[in-house]
Amino acid sequence: MSAAGPPQGANYAPSGGSAAAELANEAASVGVNIGTLVVVGVGLIGGSCALALRAAGATSRIVGVGRGRHNLDDALRRGIIDVAYTLDEDWASELAMADVVMVAAPLSQYPALLSMIAPAIGSQTIVTDAGSTKQDVIATARTTFRDAISRFVPGHPIAGSERSGALAADGTLFAGRNVILTPVSETAPDASTLVTELWQTCGARVTTMSPAAHDRVLAAVSHLPHMLAFALVAELSSRQDSADLFSYAGSGFRDVTRIAASSPSMWRDVALANRAALQDELARYRAALDAAARMLAESDGAGLAALFERAAIARRGLDSSGQASGDVT
Amino acid sequence: MSAAGPPQGANYAPSGGSAAAELANEAASVGVNIGTLVVVGVGLIGGSCALALRAAGATSRIVGVGRGRHNLDDALRRGIIDVAYTLDEDWASELAMADVVMVAAPLSQYPALLSMIAPAIGSQTIVTDAGSTKQDVIATARTTFRDAISRFVPGHPIAGSERSGALAADGTLFAGRNVILTPVSETAPDASTLVTELWQTCGARVTTMSPAAHDRVLAAVSHLPHMLAFALVAELSSRQDSADLFSYAGSGFRDVTRIAASSPSMWRDVALANRAALQDELARYRAALDAAARMLAESDGAGLAALFERAAIARRGLDSSGQASGDVT
Repeated sequence: MSAAGPPQGANYAPSGGSAAAELANEAASVGVNIGTLVVVGVGLIGGSCALALRAAGATSRIVGVGRGRHNLDDALRRGIIDVAYTLDEDWASELAMADVVMVAAPLSQYPALLSMIAPAIGSQTIVTDAGSTKQDVIATARTTFRDAISRFVPGHPIAGSERSGALAADGTLFAGRNVILTPVSETAPDASTLVTELWQTCGARVTTMSPAAHDRVLAAVSHLPHMLAFALVAELSSRQDSADLFSYAGSGFRDVTRIAASSPSMWRDVALANRAALQDELARYRAALDAAARMLAESDGAGLAALFERAAIARRGLDSSGQASGDVT
Repeated sequence: MSAAGPPQGANYAPSGGSAAAELANEAASVGVNIGTLVVVGVGLIGGSCALALRAAGATSRIVGVGRGRHNLDDALRRGIIDVAYTLDEDWASELAMADVVMVAAPLSQYPALLSMIAPAIGSQTIVTDAGSTKQDVIATARTTFRDAISRFVPGHPIAGSERSGALAADGTLFAGRNVILTPVSETAPDASTLVTELWQTCGARVTTMSPAAHDRVLAAVSHLPHMLAFALVAELSSRQDSADLFSYAGSGFRDVTRIAASSPSMWRDVALANRAALQDELARYRAALDAAARMLAESDGAGLAALFERAAIARRGLDSSGQASGDVT
């Protein structure tokens, strides 16, 4: 079972090829071998991961666990999973022989899920997750896994969509995307290596950082933007003439607010789980917005132009770097 | 010259066909005939309008006027215009015989441009514009056109892109999009009718509203979202670790901030021109954001979930209505 074997280094393609070709070569050469994969939460992320690993021939059996029978049936029908358990069935019996358990469930379910998983895994089983925040997940994992915390690899694929569920799963979702792992001091190196290879097999670029750094970065580039978009649409929709207003919304408004269609319960969980970092980001943003409002109040055209110019240069740079590295905007 | 002829009513296709087919029929049946069109500002909007009218066979001669020779050469090369003048050349001599003058230039240039246009137009010439705000444009037009204000039709096509210039022009830009006209009491009905038909020929849906209502609606669904996106990117880009932060930006961040790549000078002009309405919108938004921040500070999960839910329902509704009416998201 490769999970316990020596780490296999990825053979990178010679430089000079395209970024996409390098990623493809990298994925093909990793050769990760996961006998049984248990996916807890067969939604957009868990389902897409299962599809990508199956397409790469990296796993021979995929067990799906979820709250609702309907979504599991969708996943079975699409060939995402081979076996399905609802949470109230005996899925714990699958864990002793599992090579990898991927937790891709809402953050609010982690305490209950990890409490069931921790006592049931085998000595070689590696548990990893796809949660949007990491410090709180690690705190929960420490209290549930105790000494077995060495087998838990905290992770977060930076990919998503406002869509959810097994029907939204897509085996190419992670191609060229970043996956951040936040191993702690106790994490077993072989466990980190296997999870790295798992995501590389899905086509992702894997980096590691501290849990605190992860939570700060994601608060800035993901959690704050979600709050801003939710607040904007909620404010406009609360007005009597909201239907009129929305009927004149152009493509810019649609772009800005697309993520406001995301799962409310998932984002409530994320906001609460990463509360401290998100509060810092909100405070910084409100100060920036206050400064812009002051410029407007003072008809400070030069100040506004300079502010917009800084933003435009940075945003255009993001597009060029995104395209160069194969990221899908 | 049709500009002075009786208004021609559009023959709408029988209901029951698709929205797109109705729009196509509507455009084909309008049969607007603009002998000479002068486009002042051959950028994304002016250039796209020229391309659409030429493709429909609605005009026989298009004169382009602009600040830079380079952009005008691009426009000539792409067949967007037949003749080009830079602003310091004698383009005023074209105005007496022009059927329609379309001003699609930055708002800050309006006082100078309208001062040149007003005394030079013929008695049958109709002037219209594509400016993002309307009350300030009308104030400028009143002081420059005086009695000839009856020939000026204030307009605003709700279409755009973070791209600009003649190379970004696209004859299908207005297909299915809204164009708002804000005629005033003095506006000649035949002038409004011709401009309505002009935009219908471009494939747009034309509605009218008061200048004040226009400015309020656009402040809410366009100007405010631009301010929010500019402020977000500017704030993040001011940090020492901004390159790191941006490298982990996913598709959500890219969507939210796409319009922050828009023209800084154009948006400085818009913000100043629609200052009062934009300040109202900023105040409402800051109050909404403060409320969200309070919920977060109090770990009010139910409040956050309800806020996100309101937004998600409204935003999903926007997608379905947009698709039903053929709007491009």
